Amino acid sequence: MNKQRKVALSGDRPTGPLHIGHYVGSLKNRVELQKNLDLFVMIADVQGIASSAGQPKELRDNVLQVTLDYLAVGIDPSLCTIFIQSMVPEIAELTIYYLNLVTVARLQRNPTIKEESKQKGYGSNIPAGFLIHPVNQAADITIFKADVVPVGQDQVPLIEQTIEIVRSFNRIYGEVLTEPQAMVPKDGARLTGIDGKAKMSKSLGNALYLGEAPEAITKKVMSMYTDPKHIHVTDPGTVEGNVVFAYLDIFDPNKAEVEALKDHYRRGGLGDTVIKKRLDGVLQEFLAPIRKRREDYAKDPAAVMDIVRKGTEKARMVASTTLASVRRVMNIDYFQQK
Amino acid sequence: MNKQRKVALSGDRPTGPLHIGHYVGSLKNRVELQKNLDLFVMIADVQGIASSAGQPKELRDNVLQVTLDYLAVGIDPSLCTIFIQSMVPEIAELTIYYLNLVTVARLQRNPTIKEESKQKGYGSNIPAGFLIHPVNQAADITIFKADVVPVGQDQVPLIEQTIEIVRSFNRIYGEVLTEPQAMVPKDGARLTGIDGKAKMSKSLGNALYLGEAPEAITKKVMSMYTDPKHIHVTDPGTVEGNVVFAYLDIFDPNKAEVEALKDHYRRGGLGDTVIKKRLDGVLQEFLAPIRKRREDYAKDPAAVMDIVRKGTEKARMVASTTLASVRRVMNIDYFQQK
Repeated sequence: MNKQRKVALSGDRPTGPLHIGHYVGSLKNRVELQKNLDLFVMIADVQGIASSAGQPKELRDNVLQVTLDYLAVGIDPSLCTIFIQSMVPEIAELTIYYLNLVTVARLQRNPTIKEESKQKGYGSNIPAGFLIHPVNQAADITIFKADVVPVGQDQVPLIEQTIEIVRSFNRIYGEVLTEPQAMVPKDGARLTGIDGKAKMSKSLGNALYLGEAPEAITKKVMSMYTDPKHIHVTDPGTVEGNVVFAYLDIFDPNKAEVEALKDHYRRGGLGDTVIKKRLDGVLQEFLAPIRKRREDYAKDPAAVMDIVRKGTEKARMVASTTLASVRRVMNIDYFQQK
Repeated sequence: MNKQRKVALSGDRPTGPLHIGHYVGSLKNRVELQKNLDLFVMIADVQGIASSAGQPKELRDNVLQVTLDYLAVGIDPSLCTIFIQSMVPEIAELTIYYLNLVTVARLQRNPTIKEESKQKGYGSNIPAGFLIHPVNQAADITIFKADVVPVGQDQVPLIEQTIEIVRSFNRIYGEVLTEPQAMVPKDGARLTGIDGKAKMSKSLGNALYLGEAPEAITKKVMSMYTDPKHIHVTDPGTVEGNVVFAYLDIFDPNKAEVEALKDHYRRGGLGDTVIKKRLDGVLQEFLAPIRKRREDYAKDPAAVMDIVRKGTEKARMVASTTLASVRRVMNIDYFQQK
């Protein structure tokens, strides 16, 4: 295929605007990846439909919101391809073929599916669309011949499922699919929510959004979980599990000062308000240019959707080339050959 | 939609050439249906792939063989639409959307799936593509807005599953899908195989093919299962479960003579050879014009595939119109509306 650059696929379900947890966990990484890899950024609306059947209007607006977040953080459509999953129907077609290569039992054993199914409280009512998600994802990845897929540790079983499918397919029909690799970030710590309880997420209501207003950010920072035993300023405080310090570690450029603050906090004599105000300042500085770019792009939603339209056209071209070779080896390209 | 004629969908998996069991069970009915309904005849190769992964070359030839059988029995491309399932990728896309409306448990409870899964001996290794077959079929049916689906009694649960999906979809997104009805033939008796053991099927090796050579037919008829206790010509014989009489009942135009033969056979004094020779004559007469037309069409396979290509083009046009309205109510037609 004489590929010059390696291909990477990444993406998000458009369940709402993105937050700083997305930034730390993946967006920041993509801004780097797009410089050296042929990066495809997928707005996974088909998966969004699966989790929000019946709220189609919301989904549509979310696609715009997610794209605004992409552009705001510096994901650059001149360097990468932003596209909408459902507008590349070749993925659906490939999914259907892959479904013959995987057993139901194998999907039910998938640790990611088991874990997410528990989180969503499906019980015995797992939607078929949810169960086959790993197969759908295998199609997403392989239709773009992705070499690397940046994922969190919890998503690695999905990539393993993709590799199994690629090997089965190539063995049965012929070597046309590329085997992907999971790229798990070294500093792959998830950002906890502002409540300190779990990872940051929209549904838990513990997120700071990339486009959020300065006052809202301040209010949330001031309500952050710190150390419940740190009641008086003079009390010694705990840094571990303290969300304010966790965020300072990530966002504060002055590491030495943060370490000094930690020491002070541990000894006692440093109030929560002081560290929260510092974090607020750091976050405001980090978010200001992102918010500014987001607002600028938001003035012309049609232009933003046009970026997605062009990306989708390119993605579709790549996808249909892969699908053509898949159909060729499966010998179901009936009207092309003798 | 101001439809003038009702729409019907029927089809076959291209697992090999068709036999007289197919003729009795469905082909004969289709030749009638095409006169009054807008009939779509689907060569279900995606389902064929599910059951024959790894034999893609065979599948391709089977598509030609099945089409030759269609044309030979009088399925008329000027009256109906013959098409290849996998060449209408809109079906795959619609299947993916429907998968979110059905639970895994519901599919596992489907009687047709349970029964076929047992027949195929999948045990706990049910391919995902097999489990979701009812959803795939719901997409086949609804993408053509089929009002009626001619099926055997054993396939009725599949149509019930389709109706459930249609109702869910229309309730959640808006009324765009047509609810189909199962059309179970009144004289829906299946043709048993020549061994008398089960229904006629390729895999059981007990079939008489529509295109089979006269000598081969004769040989098979002479080896047919009759009455194992009817050893001497003078012995009284049993008509019930006797394959030769079962076939005479269906194919012999002279019902009175067949009844007289049955009486004689029951009394004793009528040899198997006599009734087999009669059946051979009847079948040869029935098959001769079919074989002739089949041979004529087979001289120009490219012309036959061209019929399928044109049918597929028409089917795709209808399918993409339905899919467009589906995407519109799902609100995922991103670049069409504001």
